[in-house]
Amino acid sequence: MHLFYTPDLVAGQSHYQLNEEESKHCIRVLRLEKDAQVQLIDGRGGLYTATIVDPHPKRTLLGITTSSQEYQKRNHYLHIAVAPTKNIERIEWFLEKATEIGIDEISLIICQRSERKEAKVDRLNKIITAAVKQSLKAYHPILNEAIALPKLLSKPFTGQKFIAHCEPGDKIDLKSAIEPNGNYLVLIGPEGDFTPHEIDEALKSDFKPITLGDSRLRTETAALEACFEINFLNR
Amino acid sequence: MHLFYTPDLVAGQSHYQLNEEESKHCIRVLRLEKDAQVQLIDGRGGLYTATIVDPHPKRTLLGITTSSQEYQKRNHYLHIAVAPTKNIERIEWFLEKATEIGIDEISLIICQRSERKEAKVDRLNKIITAAVKQSLKAYHPILNEAIALPKLLSKPFTGQKFIAHCEPGDKIDLKSAIEPNGNYLVLIGPEGDFTPHEIDEALKSDFKPITLGDSRLRTETAALEACFEINFLNR
Repeated sequence: MHLFYTPDLVAGQSHYQLNEEESKHCIRVLRLEKDAQVQLIDGRGGLYTATIVDPHPKRTLLGITTSSQEYQKRNHYLHIAVAPTKNIERIEWFLEKATEIGIDEISLIICQRSERKEAKVDRLNKIITAAVKQSLKAYHPILNEAIALPKLLSKPFTGQKFIAHCEPGDKIDLKSAIEPNGNYLVLIGPEGDFTPHEIDEALKSDFKPITLGDSRLRTETAALEACFEINFLNR
Repeated sequence: MHLFYTPDLVAGQSHYQLNEEESKHCIRVLRLEKDAQVQLIDGRGGLYTATIVDPHPKRTLLGITTSSQEYQKRNHYLHIAVAPTKNIERIEWFLEKATEIGIDEISLIICQRSERKEAKVDRLNKIITAAVKQSLKAYHPILNEAIALPKLLSKPFTGQKFIAHCEPGDKIDLKSAIEPNGNYLVLIGPEGDFTPHEIDEALKSDFKPITLGDSRLRTETAALEACFEINFLNR
């Protein structure tokens, strides 16, 4: 069944009108007709089925037939803060894969050794939305605007805070560190890793240093490894 | 330190001559000079350091200075058999990421619902080799030629055999199924999943059905999830 992302749909609504772009896609591209069934996700846990009442190519009207809330609600909250890679495609696929596997919030952090100092959040959000639809996620991950690492470190966060870095020093394995069903914030550095100063600042802000295994991982692979591990340990 | 992949290097050799392509890369591109230090991996567990004895742009001669065998030897053997995706780039990044995280052998299986019936192994092998160098792996994963699923099912394999499919039915979680430090063969189907007949045939060949969690995963994501889980459970 075809699926549409309808973030402004409110639970309890009997009807919903697709915006112009989605209407065009629905009627002109997918060529769906009156009474055809579609699925809707609101990005906040709501999954709906609907039928086409008026197949208007600019203002398609849908009648909501069924609604379920908190669809596949996650049992933990995962926020990964990762430095955007020099080749933005690498972060793009991290966003796609993390959305498929399960993530709640992503922050793009600008670090001292970041070769990329900015990232276009709109474009990246479109990639997340496509993955949300493809993998039928009723919850749409939040993507925050790029932020300088010190600013992120100073933000309050209730839960377990981790930093994955490649400098020597005592590190814990997530296996033994994770308290299940919790809130987690994980920092992943740029290609050149965090600087010792950045690591010190993170430790002062109660981030615990973790290892993601013995392999030398690229930035986006390390971020995905953390995402895999935390989802897996909460399964 | 710059690293070269030298599959024909034999432990105990005192000198090694880079082939024409690597020599050109070493001298013309990297502009390395006499006495410069480089690293070599033979793909079979050998990691070496060497110095440039003769910086010849076509026949660079290296003197081996140190050698270590079984470098980061893996404590298990992981063979993933995955259907090549319609968009080959998706399998390409699976190969890159699986190499970074840890994998020993990959087979490309052609299934009844495969939209792609072939794959150029040479090109895919280059991607694996690049990831081997980037992530400093002394062991080069083996990539087998594409094979029809029934042929693969009939091949002998000593170890645990698993199939990940989306059809209903009892499935086990790898968490509880994996015997550590073992040999594992995992089947991952094409975009349209395995057919019920293919699943029956796999079960008859002692493949155990597994779940990779509740998320709806793309083919390449499912393959990587299996790779993550088995490496993680053997850590």
